[in-house]
Amino acid sequence: MTAATDSLPPGFLADLAEYVAIPSDSRSAPMATMRAAAEWLAARLDWAGGRVEETDGFPVVRADWLGAPGAPTVLVYGHYDVQPTGDLTEWHTAPFELVVDGDVLRGRGVTDDKGPVLLVLEMARTMLAERGALPLNVRFLLEGEEEIGSPHLPAYVRAHAAELAADLVISADGAMWRPTEPSISIASKGLVALDVVVTGAAEDLHSGRYGGTVANPVHALATVLASLHTADGAVAVAGFTDGVDKLPPQRRAEIDAVDFDDEEYRAAVGAPELFGEAGYSTLARLWERPTLEVNGITAGGKYTVIPHRAVGHVSCRLVGRQDPDRVVEAISAHVAALDLPGVRVEVRADPGRVPAYRIEPDHPAVRAAREALAEVYPGQEVLLAVIAGTLPATTLFESALGAKTLFFSFATADEKHHAPNEFLRIARIGEGMRAWAALWDRLATGGTR
Amino acid sequence: MTAATDSLPPGFLADLAEYVAIPSDSRSAPMATMRAAAEWLAARLDWAGGRVEETDGFPVVRADWLGAPGAPTVLVYGHYDVQPTGDLTEWHTAPFELVVDGDVLRGRGVTDDKGPVLLVLEMARTMLAERGALPLNVRFLLEGEEEIGSPHLPAYVRAHAAELAADLVISADGAMWRPTEPSISIASKGLVALDVVVTGAAEDLHSGRYGGTVANPVHALATVLASLHTADGAVAVAGFTDGVDKLPPQRRAEIDAVDFDDEEYRAAVGAPELFGEAGYSTLARLWERPTLEVNGITAGGKYTVIPHRAVGHVSCRLVGRQDPDRVVEAISAHVAALDLPGVRVEVRADPGRVPAYRIEPDHPAVRAAREALAEVYPGQEVLLAVIAGTLPATTLFESALGAKTLFFSFATADEKHHAPNEFLRIARIGEGMRAWAALWDRLATGGTR
Ligand SMILES: [Zn+2]
Ligand SMILES: [Zn+2]
Repeated sequence: MTAATDSLPPGFLADLAEYVAIPSDSRSAPMATMRAAAEWLAARLDWAGGRVEETDGFPVVRADWLGAPGAPTVLVYGHYDVQPTGDLTEWHTAPFELVVDGDVLRGRGVTDDKGPVLLVLEMARTMLAERGALPLNVRFLLEGEEEIGSPHLPAYVRAHAAELAADLVISADGAMWRPTEPSISIASKGLVALDVVVTGAAEDLHSGRYGGTVANPVHALATVLASLHTADGAVAVAGFTDGVDKLPPQRRAEIDAVDFDDEEYRAAVGAPELFGEAGYSTLARLWERPTLEVNGITAGGKYTVIPHRAVGHVSCRLVGRQDPDRVVEAISAHVAALDLPGVRVEVRADPGRVPAYRIEPDHPAVRAAREALAEVYPGQEVLLAVIAGTLPATTLFESALGAKTLFFSFATADEKHHAPNEFLRIARIGEGMRAWAALWDRLATGGTR
Repeated sequence: MTAATDSLPPGFLADLAEYVAIPSDSRSAPMATMRAAAEWLAARLDWAGGRVEETDGFPVVRADWLGAPGAPTVLVYGHYDVQPTGDLTEWHTAPFELVVDGDVLRGRGVTDDKGPVLLVLEMARTMLAERGALPLNVRFLLEGEEEIGSPHLPAYVRAHAAELAADLVISADGAMWRPTEPSISIASKGLVALDVVVTGAAEDLHSGRYGGTVANPVHALATVLASLHTADGAVAVAGFTDGVDKLPPQRRAEIDAVDFDDEEYRAAVGAPELFGEAGYSTLARLWERPTLEVNGITAGGKYTVIPHRAVGHVSCRLVGRQDPDRVVEAISAHVAALDLPGVRVEVRADPGRVPAYRIEPDHPAVRAAREALAEVYPGQEVLLAVIAGTLPATTLFESALGAKTLFFSFATADEKHHAPNEFLRIARIGEGMRAWAALWDRLATGGTR
């Protein structure tokens, strides 16, 4: 009997365990912890001059192997930060302890993005050792603020554009759409996050001694949040969908042709039923439609008070040519138009705003990626999917470096990214290493633009 | 120059500081902490056989001084538990450290209910020392679960009804309505607390990777909570006000005659404007109308997830003959009738349900209390007010002991009960001691029923 981990290169598991053990949660970890994660990665890139470089936030890890004159240059992007653990009671294993559990590895960041990055480093180190050279020039840029919207990456990349120059960015972040077949993501949704802040009295009031005489900010917030969608699931904010094209019949047909089972999807997420914008299939909602989701509410607690403040945390995923600034304006105007006596309401948008991104299906890099996947997954169709999540770096690389980004991650979208009990399929590690090698070989000969 | 604390009996401040330092938060403190608070109180009642007695929850403190044969017996009620501190960053002093700040004392529980109880103990001990006897028989029942709805008090009181027998209960809990004149509360509102629990998927989902395809429990909760009130501030739940009489013109006139300034009240709470049920004055809303307040929401956090669960914490304050069970049924039926696709919604009511309570204004105990206050506050009118908060023990004492409860607290309603920066006016301590003594003398001669 063979264990799933037998397929892994020697030392890989121990390495990943060390890396996962560094709790590099960019929302709460101190600088020292984030730096430790960066130093750890830089050390594994010693063969390419791996180093930690300062930004105005958490540092980035940089490395360059430029021993293939005349060949294209690719920039490998990924991140070393992870999401907060959230409620620890919902985890079945310790979040920062790598656990082998049958066919999967468990731990915070194991699939987003520590495992998918580490497999590239391992592949490149091995390839260099075996062949004495890589087939193309490779730069690495691994950041520590992806999960908080990459606030300092734009300034860093623009200031170092010359040193980061590349023909193509390959992102080790992102995810295959599902475990049943290989896929390449040709688009990712944009992101705007904002807080709706409702304030009432100067301090929390006893709900008995003051109840009924002052507006309750939680009631007002509920009214605001309930107004953001229509009963049939559409976003009810005027102007929100500006820049979103009507779904072309051809794209609708392509999506309808994908083997997708609503009931299977429903059962996988464990929801009583699926629900979304009327007039679209589940997959069309996921890939082609913008969304507005309330990610949480911070308001009072289980005490007998009228909280003086209630905050709704909202994020919007954007598609097409939706302008993030316009989306914020539209929501602000919608909220301002509501009649909410007795409270003050404010919309506070996060500065990290990302438009949607797209690479054309016939781009040479997409073709090379399809071929590489076809080699690793023989006989399986390679789907062109959409990352309904957001990879803020893509539009930055396009504007600052003039380079398109190819998503080439061996995470899978169902591996509980950002949620408790995050995991990574062990088989994807070996598959990913072989696919990255095949991709580089193809890009070296077939071009990147 | 004299300090406000000069008026206090020797040792009182040090005693109260010791008592406040025990963090007897009945929502979160361990049994050992609660027991320490109970033992501390029992020791200060040694002259009356003070002792700690077990219940199925946190213990009660009991004591009896029965040296006045033929005189009435009163049962003094209060509590040693306190509310949670809430957000510590909103406190200007350490919550469990008694701080003298000009004319007030600060600390969690200082006004609810540690100070108001301690002043009765101090008065009684002093009176006994000075006179050699009290004018009537006194029992004490000080509980540790008032702030969580007294879940184990009913069973305890019913099981010990004979030992607790009294002609009148006097509550050291409650509060004077405001600092500007003495007042007696002749009624208190009932309480029903419940959670609205909305669940969607089996676990939190990434808001990008799943957004738009499943119902978001936070959206559904917002829809539920927004539906509970009409735009003009009335509770929109059918059947909620069953048992609430139309406000009689005479009571409306009495309330209108009270010197009450809306703008002053608004400024004191620091709200941008007052707001409440249409058709009632602020004071009528506070004293005579039932309320439904959302005290907080537990849902997700500031992460990019669709939370799988969202919970609204709701409490209702009841008046008149509103039946707590019927109120729960009415809210459950209201919620069940909403169309909320893709989620499950459940109403979970807390077991501790309290109907409204009232003592007649011409009850002998109310008359005695008015006279006692008139003696301590000469020349000031004594208002008959309503405690818009809830004192769960009152209806229990009526049913189990056949005794009415007189509220006689020297807390004031503006002293940030249940909120950060709780305080107690120092002058109320001496006033309270004199008033309690005057009350006992009057009850001893004038009767209690
Ligand atoms: Zn990621
Ligand atoms: Zn109290």
